[in-house]
Amino acid sequence: MNYWMIINIIAKIVGVEAAFMLPALIISAVKGENRSAVAFAATIALMLIMSLPLALMKKRRSDFHAREGLVTVGLAWIVVSLFGALPFCISGAIPNYIDCIFETVSGFTTTGATILGEIESLPMGILYWRSFTHWLGGMGVLVFVLALSPLTEKDGGEGMHLLRAESPGIKISKLVPRMKRSAGILYTIYVVMTVLEAVLLIIGRVPLFDSVTIAFGTAGTGGFAIKNDSLASYSAYTQWVVTVFMLLFSVNFNIYFLLLLRQFRKVIRDEELRAFSFIVVGTTVIIAINTIGCFDSFGENIRHSAFQVASIISTTGFCTVDFDQWPQISRTLLVLLMFIGACAGSTGGGSKVVRVVVLLRSAKRAIYKAFHPRAVKMVYMDGEILEDDTVNAVGSYYLIYFLIFAITTLLITVDGFSMETNFTAVAACINNVGPGMDGVGAVMNYGAFSYFSKIILSISMLIGRLEIYPILVLMVPQVWKK
Amino acid sequence: MNYWMIINIIAKIVGVEAAFMLPALIISAVKGENRSAVAFAATIALMLIMSLPLALMKKRRSDFHAREGLVTVGLAWIVVSLFGALPFCISGAIPNYIDCIFETVSGFTTTGATILGEIESLPMGILYWRSFTHWLGGMGVLVFVLALSPLTEKDGGEGMHLLRAESPGIKISKLVPRMKRSAGILYTIYVVMTVLEAVLLIIGRVPLFDSVTIAFGTAGTGGFAIKNDSLASYSAYTQWVVTVFMLLFSVNFNIYFLLLLRQFRKVIRDEELRAFSFIVVGTTVIIAINTIGCFDSFGENIRHSAFQVASIISTTGFCTVDFDQWPQISRTLLVLLMFIGACAGSTGGGSKVVRVVVLLRSAKRAIYKAFHPRAVKMVYMDGEILEDDTVNAVGSYYLIYFLIFAITTLLITVDGFSMETNFTAVAACINNVGPGMDGVGAVMNYGAFSYFSKIILSISMLIGRLEIYPILVLMVPQVWKK
Repeated sequence: MNYWMIINIIAKIVGVEAAFMLPALIISAVKGENRSAVAFAATIALMLIMSLPLALMKKRRSDFHAREGLVTVGLAWIVVSLFGALPFCISGAIPNYIDCIFETVSGFTTTGATILGEIESLPMGILYWRSFTHWLGGMGVLVFVLALSPLTEKDGGEGMHLLRAESPGIKISKLVPRMKRSAGILYTIYVVMTVLEAVLLIIGRVPLFDSVTIAFGTAGTGGFAIKNDSLASYSAYTQWVVTVFMLLFSVNFNIYFLLLLRQFRKVIRDEELRAFSFIVVGTTVIIAINTIGCFDSFGENIRHSAFQVASIISTTGFCTVDFDQWPQISRTLLVLLMFIGACAGSTGGGSKVVRVVVLLRSAKRAIYKAFHPRAVKMVYMDGEILEDDTVNAVGSYYLIYFLIFAITTLLITVDGFSMETNFTAVAACINNVGPGMDGVGAVMNYGAFSYFSKIILSISMLIGRLEIYPILVLMVPQVWKK
Repeated sequence: MNYWMIINIIAKIVGVEAAFMLPALIISAVKGENRSAVAFAATIALMLIMSLPLALMKKRRSDFHAREGLVTVGLAWIVVSLFGALPFCISGAIPNYIDCIFETVSGFTTTGATILGEIESLPMGILYWRSFTHWLGGMGVLVFVLALSPLTEKDGGEGMHLLRAESPGIKISKLVPRMKRSAGILYTIYVVMTVLEAVLLIIGRVPLFDSVTIAFGTAGTGGFAIKNDSLASYSAYTQWVVTVFMLLFSVNFNIYFLLLLRQFRKVIRDEELRAFSFIVVGTTVIIAINTIGCFDSFGENIRHSAFQVASIISTTGFCTVDFDQWPQISRTLLVLLMFIGACAGSTGGGSKVVRVVVLLRSAKRAIYKAFHPRAVKMVYMDGEILEDDTVNAVGSYYLIYFLIFAITTLLITVDGFSMETNFTAVAACINNVGPGMDGVGAVMNYGAFSYFSKIILSISMLIGRLEIYPILVLMVPQVWKK
């Protein structure tokens, strides 16, 4: 194992994180929030002192394999979260460090699950940092590292292993060949869309600070809000803008590449996009009808239904109403949407629409094979044959995912909450959604869980965000052997 | 498709069912339960009139492939249930035919989910038939058909396809070569163990009728009781006897073959049996500790905990206490046990311990492959390498299983019950357990569901009992084409 390289990369990432903490420091200083300013300054200093020497060390070995890639990604997210949690703790905004870690992991993994019941009284600098973790996490801390670091100078190689371990699913391979340029384009799209959303919100008379933090939460598909009632008290216009952008940020970013290249036919034929649109429209209509009577007009039904569907399938987790009070069909549909999640190659979480499509097709094949045992049948995606290895990998992914799901749910039962609370808490964490149902419903929070459960749930957020392997691999003793 | 053969076999099975209905007719007649006696007589007459001509038809074609095997098994269980439900309806014991179908499917699939709140007032003949459906279903209606029919004269061939579609899992292949003899031995073990249990219960001063019906319910791992409180009012001795026999009937019957052959070393080394024992002992201990305070002494804790663990993992579903009131850890563990289920090659349901073991090992391999992408790693079982096809088949099984689970849960939400009720109802039905939690908990029943949901749950019981494919295949249009 190339420990030097792993430490070096993580140190660089921590250095970048320190730089990204500066705006929060400035806001705290300008607003005269002294405790927060001190907290950010101290954290930045600590990060620089610890990371700079390691980041500037000279290269000793350059071998970098899948194992190193996975370990680096897994460790990087953990280290970044541990540092990112410090300002909450030092400023006294969140007194306990484990609570701070939960909140920060939830931020960087773009989950948006919070242990805070009272949010509005927090200092602005802290609120800014809390929402900004979503934005940083959303694109994957590594995308900008890739764009900045000399790693990407080499074609494929090391960078590929990092990117493969990172979130965006199956299709990212298409982006690889010219990775640095690709990372630049991705990053530009991300920034432009975030700015566009913020501007549209400002036009709708949302205060600047609210607009920026909401845009951060949407772009990363995170879901931290700066109000206790999430987005409930904003105007219908604001809620519609956020609905649209939650959906835009949960579409595969390849689609925007294709639009820039004017390849409209490819966009229209994209099977994941089609499935995603179908699910969004279908569930919105069903829930709008199912919630008749909950609101004053059918227009409101449509708005809240569309918002909640977009919020859950994009794994953002903003709320406009307490959907935990909705009828059972709507509640169950929303929980099922958590498991589907966004499109691969987006900032959203969940198991990804493309995996669901492959899963359904391989299930269909298995049924076909039951009565035609000797038949050879392929699984197609976007007109191309998927290799058996790919199909099997999707299968393995789900099986490990359900195993982790079962184990995590069992572990957090120690707190004695209801089965629905535990089940949906794990569903909301592992899929990076945020709110669940019952004890972790739209108007509740995760504060009541024990520290043990908060750690377990933090790990499940990381497992979900990094698509399982980078975190699991850290727990395998063999990985650490020579 | 060889329709003639399919109809012929099903007709024979219906004829056998008619014969097995005779004891219920005799009990009804002896006890002077006239309406029941008429109901059984009418049903038997109808079955014979409809099946005899078809069963006695001469053979036209003898080709019989996987497709025909699956269709036959799927249709046979449905037809047998439709006929078996008639006595409940005609006698007026259960007025609505859909309720009767639910109860009979639950009986033949050895689920034990009931729509009846008041059981004790039912006529004895009806109670006998209700419990007897478990015993018939338990071994698989086909095993005795195999032992009786000329189909098995041929080596392998047709019979194999039937048996492969039938429940007992991976290892049944070892039984195939001399199938008729094997079926005879299996059947003998089944009868001897049932009689042994009934005798032990009678020795414990349980009334004869109770002993026989409890033995039927245990042998088939069904769970219908003849008392409203299931087995709660019987003695501790009785409950322990039933605990032991529930476990014995959920062990792979190969084990008893091996014991008869004095191959004790093979028994001890059997990996599925080891895993099964480990799970049973482990969960019993955890639940016994977790329920401290619920009972007067730790001895009682152990008894109820062991009983409930055995009842759920064997997928029987008898109860001695309302475990729905137990602490969350115990409740969640019991729900997880539903998904594991009994050993393959037993009368129990669930996804089977051997599949769980293969699943865990293939998950381990997938994690290993994440950091050693080019490594070749095998999955072992009982010291032998499992072929990739087998491992992938287990994966496909679970994926389809979870898909059906999600769809079924969503469909029954139309009734508006709690998420926990719906989730555990489906878990209890698809795994052939019987009772779930909350609205379908130990002291509740399925009577409150709509007819739509009762049909959906009946289908899920059949899907679970027949290990998915024979029922799903019936829904594939291609199967019905030439």
